Amino acid sequence: MIESRLHLALVHYPVLDKNGDTIAAAVTNLDLHDIARAARTYGVRGYHIVTPVEDQHELVHRLRRHWVEGHGAAYNPKRRQALELVALHSALDDAVQAIGRAEGQRPRVVVTSARFTDRDGCLSFAELRRQLAKGRVVLLVLGTGWGLAPACIAAADDRLEPIGVPTHYNHLSVRSAAAIMLDRLLAA
Amino acid sequence: MIESRLHLALVHYPVLDKNGDTIAAAVTNLDLHDIARAARTYGVRGYHIVTPVEDQHELVHRLRRHWVEGHGAAYNPKRRQALELVALHSALDDAVQAIGRAEGQRPRVVVTSARFTDRDGCLSFAELRRQLAKGRVVLLVLGTGWGLAPACIAAADDRLEPIGVPTHYNHLSVRSAAAIMLDRLLAA
Repeated sequence: MIESRLHLALVHYPVLDKNGDTIAAAVTNLDLHDIARAARTYGVRGYHIVTPVEDQHELVHRLRRHWVEGHGAAYNPKRRQALELVALHSALDDAVQAIGRAEGQRPRVVVTSARFTDRDGCLSFAELRRQLAKGRVVLLVLGTGWGLAPACIAAADDRLEPIGVPTHYNHLSVRSAAAIMLDRLLAA
Repeated sequence: MIESRLHLALVHYPVLDKNGDTIAAAVTNLDLHDIARAARTYGVRGYHIVTPVEDQHELVHRLRRHWVEGHGAAYNPKRRQALELVALHSALDDAVQAIGRAEGQRPRVVVTSARFTDRDGCLSFAELRRQLAKGRVVLLVLGTGWGLAPACIAAADDRLEPIGVPTHYNHLSVRSAAAIMLDRLLAA
């Protein structure tokens, strides 16, 4: 069993849209729930939602309150345990700072993309798994929409190799990608 | 690269509810999309939705039509390629028959549950992966709600070992579980 110090960030800005323009994507109920449940299942220490949009902060707060303190907590306590992991930040760097304070050590920021190639000098899943097993504090960053914007990728410490699938079709939802990554990095 | 003859079934009846009663769970838009995308990404041959509820058949037909033939197909052709995999059946046995006709060979029916233990004589992921690599026709069955009803499990050919997670919390969504299973069985 790996007791990791892995954190997960789901970035809604800056990400790309279908046309390659940088946008702020909307936070969805389902990204919160599905990824929080997978994060809790694999022992992730924090699930960090990143968006600068104020309205979206209100939405996330309301959802979290419902499941952590409100009627949802009594109806489904398992959901509470998952959504307790959710933290909210206006920018990725705020998440990095908060994790640094909580863990007593700045996290390695590792970004993900289905588009990385051999030339990107990516960290393999096996190597990142070894680092986590040694207790390294890591923030794994996933983008919504059509993926993280180049500036966000350029600012990171490391890039994780793409999932690598057996077909030429590679359109996993961010929820599926998160589940698969956690399984590869932290499965018993 | 494994070119498998794996099919996936998502069963909505008979499944259990929170209290252990057998129910017909509702088909959700998201289970269709997320699992179809993962199935297409990993080269699954068919994604079989099982429900006896007529209204739900109409819903699935409408959704599939929108993305495969309607406005959705033009807006997002990638989504079309995923949803083309969707087939609809009133009972699991109908799916087994249809796959038998399409593949020229009855599939091995392999059921899944987070609750299987060592005493259930489960097939390991590694063993099922070997069988798929040899070209065996397999139907992997996942349940919605709180999981497949006992009668459905008893009628299957094999049970797949549970995903096995590093914490005592084990509440993956069926979408996350499907993605992780496909990755373990079919990753390049």
